[in-house]
Amino acid sequence: MNELLNSFKQTKFQLAGHGFRNVGVMKQALAGIEDNQESDMYGNGNFIEDFQTKLAAYLGKESAVFFPSGTMAQQIALRIWCDEQGLKRVAYHPLCHLEIHEQDGLKELHHIDPVLLADKNRVIQLEDVTGLNEEIACLLLELPQREIGGQLPDYESLARISAYCREQGIRLHLDGARLFEILPYYGKTAAEICSLFDSVYVSFYKGIGGVAGAILAGDSAFTEKSKVWKRRHGGDLISLYPYIISADYLFEKRVGKMEQYYQEALELARLYNQLPGVATRPIEPVSNMFHVRIKAPKDKLESVFVELHEQTGIGFTGSLREISGEEVYYEVSIGDLYEQVPQPELTEAFQLLGQKLKEI
Amino acid sequence: MNELLNSFKQTKFQLAGHGFRNVGVMKQALAGIEDNQESDMYGNGNFIEDFQTKLAAYLGKESAVFFPSGTMAQQIALRIWCDEQGLKRVAYHPLCHLEIHEQDGLKELHHIDPVLLADKNRVIQLEDVTGLNEEIACLLLELPQREIGGQLPDYESLARISAYCREQGIRLHLDGARLFEILPYYGKTAAEICSLFDSVYVSFYKGIGGVAGAILAGDSAFTEKSKVWKRRHGGDLISLYPYIISADYLFEKRVGKMEQYYQEALELARLYNQLPGVATRPIEPVSNMFHVRIKAPKDKLESVFVELHEQTGIGFTGSLREISGEEVYYEVSIGDLYEQVPQPELTEAFQLLGQKLKEI
Repeated sequence: MNELLNSFKQTKFQLAGHGFRNVGVMKQALAGIEDNQESDMYGNGNFIEDFQTKLAAYLGKESAVFFPSGTMAQQIALRIWCDEQGLKRVAYHPLCHLEIHEQDGLKELHHIDPVLLADKNRVIQLEDVTGLNEEIACLLLELPQREIGGQLPDYESLARISAYCREQGIRLHLDGARLFEILPYYGKTAAEICSLFDSVYVSFYKGIGGVAGAILAGDSAFTEKSKVWKRRHGGDLISLYPYIISADYLFEKRVGKMEQYYQEALELARLYNQLPGVATRPIEPVSNMFHVRIKAPKDKLESVFVELHEQTGIGFTGSLREISGEEVYYEVSIGDLYEQVPQPELTEAFQLLGQKLKEI
Repeated sequence: MNELLNSFKQTKFQLAGHGFRNVGVMKQALAGIEDNQESDMYGNGNFIEDFQTKLAAYLGKESAVFFPSGTMAQQIALRIWCDEQGLKRVAYHPLCHLEIHEQDGLKELHHIDPVLLADKNRVIQLEDVTGLNEEIACLLLELPQREIGGQLPDYESLARISAYCREQGIRLHLDGARLFEILPYYGKTAAEICSLFDSVYVSFYKGIGGVAGAILAGDSAFTEKSKVWKRRHGGDLISLYPYIISADYLFEKRVGKMEQYYQEALELARLYNQLPGVATRPIEPVSNMFHVRIKAPKDKLESVFVELHEQTGIGFTGSLREISGEEVYYEVSIGDLYEQVPQPELTEAFQLLGQKLKEI
């Protein structure tokens, strides 16, 4: 383990997250379940069926299917829409999860070609879609766009893109890995947002903080097909209950806290933006997440944060990523831990960080 | 739930299995783990790395990778061998899991053509392999062949097939979903059996009785490629520890009991074979499993077993599958429960079953 991560793990308080991902999370979720409750069996049984029904209702869709991962769920969603239209081409953002984090599964397993829409530093807008030169079966929108700090189009843009896709017969899929987290900014319910999309994926280990797992929702014809593909992918496990039980337990615990996380992200971003050479992205967060960009060399900043962690007991970040030799960034996602940080210590720590940055 | 399954679930003792698949299994496995133990992270971390190292050593292979399912692991193994040889054709038994239980994932996702070897009612022998008319990249052998009652070739046949494949440059893959269960019959270690194969898959929810999960083992070049495909399939989950912890806990608890299960299967099969119109398949089991075949119409037999369950408190089976209008079968896999059945009650129950079968 590197020195920065190590110093971060030793801190008493952390600014981001729900706490370290440990076995206690699973145990706590299971504590409320009786030992004799029967496992789900290959997609059947109370645990999985009840949770699917509940999430379908929450997302305002006819049907929902629990998946072990979003990687699997989303490839399958795009495959179904491509097969429906007999056209193996989709469009998504250049920093889409499928493009940069999945070892090209979409291409290697499904032979689907993606068209990369928009400049990678901004979100997809209507003009990007109307300006497409090639026919596509499906457009994927990721809300918020994680790799650029969690940015969002405004709701009207979203509604216009949706209307255009319907008009053109283009299926619209939502990468809603962080859907719960953006509802306070839009001031909409999940069902209202999802009504703009033909299919929706949500994750249970981002803002919800579960162990793993995802839901894919849409109409019943779509979800039935997704179950066949889930088996083909090797995702129709005999037992998914550890993920389902933890997802359900933490969904109940945290889905109502997204407004709080959002407000806290706004507050924390303001603190960062007061520091010399520091800017958050976006400047004003639209969810519980943002990036912190700092103009300084990575090795020097690492020393700064290691010292800061040791001196203040407040954890800022466990890793830094280089943008250039003179600039780095890290991701912040607010969770349960932020509210536990005492305000005086927080103010002091930011003052100290400001001093240290000046001295670089 | 149907009446037969319901009556089976109400019995005090059951002849097969480790008990119903319930949440208690997961809780028990977690009880010995401290809350602050950190989750695995996308294939890294102590839980997953330690278990992989342990199983690689047990199987006598250079390296091993934990997968959420055997469906995923085996498609990937075959894909790697096909890519290596630039030939998208493999051979396996007509009742291979990939052929009948995976919604054609191998064909739909990997575009691999299988050649079905041997008559479906017997295991693959050397002559089937030497008689192949088409070139293949890989041969898959399932030991034991589950869908025909868990049959095995003798060890010498196996060794000859392996030698032939090496000579011909055909990769040999082991579907060892029930590998632990056949070691007593062969009188060999897992590593000795696995040394005949280039790649090996084992499962943790058959004889081991875990929650889910599988290991794929081979040389490091092979397992490194399998990790890339695991991510493409959506199986590289952020946390697999619930499956790993339960697999490890129950591996330790049960891998040493396979000889006992095997002897008990021999004993139970003898009891069945004394009954009129009943034969086990194989007559003499070679693992902890066998099929019970009964010459009688399904609906009549269902009534017989429902009554038997109610009258004796001993559970024989929860489901019957039709072979023809006049014959049915069910699968028996011996686990922890068999030894708990009191001998006098067992004898009495078999006598009663014999009487009832005569009266059909």
